[in-house]
Amino acid sequence: MNVLQAALNDKTLFVSVMAANNEIGTIQDIQEIAALAKAAGAWMHSDAVQAAGKIPVNVDNLGVDYLTLSAHKIYGPKGVGALYVRKGAPITPLILGGHQEDGLRAGTYNNLGILGFGKAAQIACGELAAYGAQMAALRDRLREGLAGAIPNIAVNGHPADMLPNTLSVSFPGAEGEAILLSMDLMGIEASTGSACASGSLEPSHVLMATGAGPELAHGSIRFSLGWGNTVEDIDYIIEKLPPVIARLRAMSTVSGG
Amino acid sequence: MNVLQAALNDKTLFVSVMAANNEIGTIQDIQEIAALAKAAGAWMHSDAVQAAGKIPVNVDNLGVDYLTLSAHKIYGPKGVGALYVRKGAPITPLILGGHQEDGLRAGTYNNLGILGFGKAAQIACGELAAYGAQMAALRDRLREGLAGAIPNIAVNGHPADMLPNTLSVSFPGAEGEAILLSMDLMGIEASTGSACASGSLEPSHVLMATGAGPELAHGSIRFSLGWGNTVEDIDYIIEKLPPVIARLRAMSTVSGG
Repeated sequence: MNVLQAALNDKTLFVSVMAANNEIGTIQDIQEIAALAKAAGAWMHSDAVQAAGKIPVNVDNLGVDYLTLSAHKIYGPKGVGALYVRKGAPITPLILGGHQEDGLRAGTYNNLGILGFGKAAQIACGELAAYGAQMAALRDRLREGLAGAIPNIAVNGHPADMLPNTLSVSFPGAEGEAILLSMDLMGIEASTGSACASGSLEPSHVLMATGAGPELAHGSIRFSLGWGNTVEDIDYIIEKLPPVIARLRAMSTVSGG
Repeated sequence: MNVLQAALNDKTLFVSVMAANNEIGTIQDIQEIAALAKAAGAWMHSDAVQAAGKIPVNVDNLGVDYLTLSAHKIYGPKGVGALYVRKGAPITPLILGGHQEDGLRAGTYNNLGILGFGKAAQIACGELAAYGAQMAALRDRLREGLAGAIPNIAVNGHPADMLPNTLSVSFPGAEGEAILLSMDLMGIEASTGSACASGSLEPSHVLMATGAGPELAHGSIRFSLGWGNTVEDIDYIIEKLPPVIARLRAMSTVSGG
């Protein structure tokens, strides 16, 4: 019996699990979780914002009652998303007023956004296999290259069940924000933690939950690859990052005494 | 003492009045209403969606604490709007999650929409006087033309305090939806009531509130003019609409007979 099964009982109304994590790319077995949730009589939701366009996402295969998507994560416009609601699943509007979307979300439609989202989804479905193969190859090249050139790095997240385009690594002894700043000066764009929490100085709650401990959680860097990236980009990072980490670790040893 | 003054007392928390009505174009004296609301210790909100871009809208002149705007009403993109909140006025988020907009509205910004809205607002401010003059001239030509060619028409809304681009008229004895259908076949696009209530067969609550009675409220047609309209468009309506009204009135007399 796993953790979820132990937590579910006949009082459980609603289960919500991300299809894939935004910080570390770990993929959850939504199909299994949904089956457990449904067996307990609960409604099942999955946030597939990070998964869509990267791995297959099908509401019937997953067995979910609700699923959320966001256009800008699949090369669509920003500021538009979608909530799938299975027929019969209860739903209450947050925004009241006009009769739009059958009364579920009042307000004039964001036509441009909706159109762009639809087109982006169509393209993403067609390119899913090619995207997965190309991103995984770049991601593996980056991971192997960094692990070979930098001693003592930690790759965060599940070793196999992960999105093809996400790589979260920690460099013990070097602080994430300082790494980010140095990389930015060299034209390498990455992030620490999630965009939603940018500006926060707390260690990543995701990494803390994986048992990484505050040092790894503070030092994590998230690389998100996309169609715009090339082998040359990867090799540039593998060349430029090791001396940065070495310098930061040396400074940290000096100042920390 | 007017109706509002009589309704206000020290238990009044919040007053919300449209700056201009969307169905009949009547403009409210928000400055006066806001002064009364503030004197009673209430917060003052105005929905200026219909007014912006048609008449001057300035939160300080109006004396409001909150003001709502919508981009598509000023030739901007659909699906984006703005809520002005005066410093110190209380506000609670509807949508929770990320830290965007200082925690007041979570979610990735609709960048394209926001940019388009800003540009549209800039243009609308510059064109406000020209817009008002051109629309009022077209609107007056339409009103006089219809009144001269069709017996027994009622012009709805305030005779003077009205938006320059809106004309709401009722044709007793001819039903609004039937007029709309006939006009549509001739390439004349208008509406009955508000877009938010389209599909509803109830008489306009706005016209009922003005004391118009169900016959006028059912038979109202709202013409909304814009930069795309010409004198030729107006003259086309004045030529084509009178026989339609006459035919519908004759049918109504026969069937109702």
